[in-house]
Amino acid sequence: MKFDYSHQENWYFEHGKHQSPINIDDQVATTWPRGSALEVDYQNEVSLAHDSGNGLEVFVTGTAILNYRKFNLVQFHTHTPSEHQLNQHSFAAEIHFVHQALNGAKAVIAVFFEIGPANPILASVIENWTKPNDFTIKLTDFIPANPAYYHYLGSLTTPPLTEDVEWYVIKDPVTLSQEQLAFLEGLAAKNNRDLQPLNDRPILYHE
Amino acid sequence: MKFDYSHQENWYFEHGKHQSPINIDDQVATTWPRGSALEVDYQNEVSLAHDSGNGLEVFVTGTAILNYRKFNLVQFHTHTPSEHQLNQHSFAAEIHFVHQALNGAKAVIAVFFEIGPANPILASVIENWTKPNDFTIKLTDFIPANPAYYHYLGSLTTPPLTEDVEWYVIKDPVTLSQEQLAFLEGLAAKNNRDLQPLNDRPILYHE
Repeated sequence: MKFDYSHQENWYFEHGKHQSPINIDDQVATTWPRGSALEVDYQNEVSLAHDSGNGLEVFVTGTAILNYRKFNLVQFHTHTPSEHQLNQHSFAAEIHFVHQALNGAKAVIAVFFEIGPANPILASVIENWTKPNDFTIKLTDFIPANPAYYHYLGSLTTPPLTEDVEWYVIKDPVTLSQEQLAFLEGLAAKNNRDLQPLNDRPILYHE
Repeated sequence: MKFDYSHQENWYFEHGKHQSPINIDDQVATTWPRGSALEVDYQNEVSLAHDSGNGLEVFVTGTAILNYRKFNLVQFHTHTPSEHQLNQHSFAAEIHFVHQALNGAKAVIAVFFEIGPANPILASVIENWTKPNDFTIKLTDFIPANPAYYHYLGSLTTPPLTEDVEWYVIKDPVTLSQEQLAFLEGLAAKNNRDLQPLNDRPILYHE
């Protein structure tokens, strides 16, 4: 195909092929021996925990080394039920740790929640909900003991749905209690975006 | 703003904000101490050198370590005049080494050409042009002695103009002769895309 450089305004602009969330199929994922273990160094001070209008959003700081590069943690927020699915299984909730690197690259670490023992971090957030927002939480407690994860390239899951987002979806879920789930659902009863087609994207798995 | 999760089909889809090429303004670029030096391990065998219909395109293999991650070299091709500009300066030509990583990430190393002594690699390509396509070139000779580069996140410069492309634009040009430029222009007289707005993107500089 010969491109018409005199009428560049007519060039077809492909978009929307690399959107999130997706269903992660274990059978499709390939192991990623060159991937690096997730390395997070999150601070414990919460500067603001509030309802963004779309559910729980908490401003925190810290850094993460993801695929060998340094990212800054910006915030975390929750979705109920989960946005990603694992082998067609939907979880009670999903937490997203949103990061940005110096070159503007965005990366999200996602952790699933299933119903079980109360989560100590959510307990702190809920306990401090109506008080001035200045408390500490041990943020790394959100990361499961086994940090094996799936990696793929996707998008933000809320408008403007910007692509160019690296996803690190941790395989093992953590737990929250039924009461804690009710708190999150009280802020936003349903705030999960529809599943998006995988299209031609590889899913990599790092143990 | 509260998102309407019942009408996700109406969500605004932002695109086209991170397109290539751009003008690289030295005054806007910030130094990137955490960047890594370009590390290329290119093979010398050419499997195919042809006119893609849009100019010279050469299929080659090799690997590059870019910002600490491994990419596979797919091909290189040329644009006349250059697509990127450096402080509003356009060069006679620009070569793009197109890479892809296991997770699907794309990265391009760009090198500018200015008129001067003949380029030995282009000489080999031109010498073998009408012969069966199976010859060797010392591909790393395309990389200038000083591999200082600018880095930003952009797009492919031909349709489908896919974003999610990491650019590594080497500051120092290499040379080609007037005759070699005429050969490239004989394949495609003008195949440079219009400059695109930088928008909110940082430009990083690594010495």
